[in-house]
Amino acid sequence: MALIVQKYGGTSVANTERIKNVAARVAGYRSRGDQIVVVVSAMSGVTDNLIKLAKDIMPLPSEREMDMLLATGEQTTISLTAMALHALGIDAVSLTGAQAGIVTDGVHTKAKILNITPKQAHALLKAGKVVIVAGFQGQTPEGQITTLGRGGSDLTAIALAAALRADLCQIYTDVDGVYTADPRIVPCARKLNEIAYDEMLELAGAGAKVMQLRSVEFAKKFGVVFEVRSSMNDNPGTIVKEEVRSMEDVVVRGVSLDKNQAKVTLVAVPDRPGVAARIFNALSDAAINVDMIVQNVSHGVGLPATDLSFTVDKPDLLKATKVIESLKAEIAYREVISDENIGKLSIVGVGMRSHSGVAAKMFETLAKENVNIGMISTSEIKISVIIDLAKGEQATRAVHAAFLESKPA
Amino acid sequence: MALIVQKYGGTSVANTERIKNVAARVAGYRSRGDQIVVVVSAMSGVTDNLIKLAKDIMPLPSEREMDMLLATGEQTTISLTAMALHALGIDAVSLTGAQAGIVTDGVHTKAKILNITPKQAHALLKAGKVVIVAGFQGQTPEGQITTLGRGGSDLTAIALAAALRADLCQIYTDVDGVYTADPRIVPCARKLNEIAYDEMLELAGAGAKVMQLRSVEFAKKFGVVFEVRSSMNDNPGTIVKEEVRSMEDVVVRGVSLDKNQAKVTLVAVPDRPGVAARIFNALSDAAINVDMIVQNVSHGVGLPATDLSFTVDKPDLLKATKVIESLKAEIAYREVISDENIGKLSIVGVGMRSHSGVAAKMFETLAKENVNIGMISTSEIKISVIIDLAKGEQATRAVHAAFLESKPA
Repeated sequence: MALIVQKYGGTSVANTERIKNVAARVAGYRSRGDQIVVVVSAMSGVTDNLIKLAKDIMPLPSEREMDMLLATGEQTTISLTAMALHALGIDAVSLTGAQAGIVTDGVHTKAKILNITPKQAHALLKAGKVVIVAGFQGQTPEGQITTLGRGGSDLTAIALAAALRADLCQIYTDVDGVYTADPRIVPCARKLNEIAYDEMLELAGAGAKVMQLRSVEFAKKFGVVFEVRSSMNDNPGTIVKEEVRSMEDVVVRGVSLDKNQAKVTLVAVPDRPGVAARIFNALSDAAINVDMIVQNVSHGVGLPATDLSFTVDKPDLLKATKVIESLKAEIAYREVISDENIGKLSIVGVGMRSHSGVAAKMFETLAKENVNIGMISTSEIKISVIIDLAKGEQATRAVHAAFLESKPA
Repeated sequence: MALIVQKYGGTSVANTERIKNVAARVAGYRSRGDQIVVVVSAMSGVTDNLIKLAKDIMPLPSEREMDMLLATGEQTTISLTAMALHALGIDAVSLTGAQAGIVTDGVHTKAKILNITPKQAHALLKAGKVVIVAGFQGQTPEGQITTLGRGGSDLTAIALAAALRADLCQIYTDVDGVYTADPRIVPCARKLNEIAYDEMLELAGAGAKVMQLRSVEFAKKFGVVFEVRSSMNDNPGTIVKEEVRSMEDVVVRGVSLDKNQAKVTLVAVPDRPGVAARIFNALSDAAINVDMIVQNVSHGVGLPATDLSFTVDKPDLLKATKVIESLKAEIAYREVISDENIGKLSIVGVGMRSHSGVAAKMFETLAKENVNIGMISTSEIKISVIIDLAKGEQATRAVHAAFLESKPA
């Protein structure tokens, strides 16, 4: 008998028919004698409708009241899911985030989980019941309702799995698992049987949309092994876990292409201490998330100067250039250039650490495809390059072929 | 500075425009310096949609899960109402039933309020905030979410007014107040300025649909003076309060016609002890609500026998006759006759107690209209008669003219 935490996202509970499918799946595990905790999101579309209602009333609603409003979405799903299990003759009880003991800080709309005291869930499991928990929500120690922000339901599931010492945590979604690349770009991309936390983190950071970083970080921190799999079929998914030695046999686990980046270059920035700090503090104050940063060594005659490039999410580009322009007098760079037509191509794998020549092979592959490299950034287990957006998909296929199509994942 | 509890029903908060209207009204009171607690229902239609979702999943959903589901309706309204007040620059905070300290028993879908510990509401009012409370819901001492059943939001408002020792409780609805009769039947019906709890109770029991009995009973028990008024205009409504001496000057406060009754008659019931108890226990076991009961003295030759008539809600008629038929062998009555084409016409007034001849005048008025009386039932402050449904409206107008159109209400 295993204790399993299962999380179903919005598309998996989009309507009463799908909720019944979820119940049938839970019933299947139940019949094996497993103890099951089910975490559900709001039915897809519900959260958007609630946000629309709020925006009808005022453009920038209070975050506390938004949490009060949005928390109803998951509360609706948990009760319907419990009923669907009852209809199959299975004893099930729903719990709000607060009732499940999910205690958070008071940062409304993006609260952090402080701790979980799953007393009720424990007692209900012990009494033989399936426990249905509202994802995405919790309450402060003072009893205020909070929500956890994007990817919050995944986080609820993983945190509950940690608190309950579950044997397995399954994240059901609308894809079969984690792939070596986006199958829409690389038709021969393969589903991975397993992946290390760090690889999953780098892939998520590289634009692969399977899960939010914070849930993977949380799982890594507490050693929660989880499986990403589809709620539409019975295929096994991808197990995400601590790195094991055999994982290093595979040099590159996956390839990703992020089309949502834009590049900003400050030309001829005076090379003096504190300039970079000034720039990136100003961007941070404007709540702009900076991804890659590249600065070359000084060059030119006269005063030392350098070119400084960084990338931001495309929707933030205008805001970012405005921030940079506002610093022109102070920093005295020559000009600012921005480029939206870029793609960030990344390869990820813990095996890179023990294999040399990976970067060289990647660059050589791109050169053969006549793809120019604009920026390079590397971590221990990832290499990212900025390339021309128009050549992004072609380059992704070439790199996938070079690293991932001759050997098993 | 007064402390006012205001309750707005589903039609008053049916959409974001109406919620903004509610906020504007609250803002008006606020600008006079009043402290305000607002109790809101679910937006009209929302509860029905939730029930439909549940029935899609199973015909008889668990009552605990129905409460979990339905409680989201009011939670949505409170957050939107708080936002609408924020949009007008007014500091407002929403509270679920649980947060407002509404503690109930564990009878899901029709929980009773055990007590109210409005600590948060007190603190928020003291801090100068408008407090928005979800009507219709509470939680058990163990933290289970409950709902209060029909008329629950009125009850929340009246109970909060009692617990907070409010100066006034206003029940906003889609009618202007309590009328001497249904204006759709009696065009010259007048709005009452005030009415005694007992009169309101008898009118509610007589089919007038302004409020549920239990809220009025609660108000009477705790001496909460409340006003029924419209959220669509600024007209003063009807004040419901403890009887005062001057109320007796008016003999009849109102007339009501209940078209939702049906009559069952057992002909020639053997007149022996225990028969009536047997019949009405059987009906009660079948959860059939019996309103009027009339039994005449014995008659006939041979064994003493009597006719026994009672009325039930029209939708229960079939069930009631089946129950009675199942008792035929045991009780040995001659036959059972049922009649759906009846109306119950009632007149209500605390003044009746000190005025004789009220019943005679009513019967005389009906005789003049050639209306036959099928059953009669009286209480200290009410007289009800069962008449032919086809003559119901004509009879109502005649009785209204006889008692209520020559003098002020």
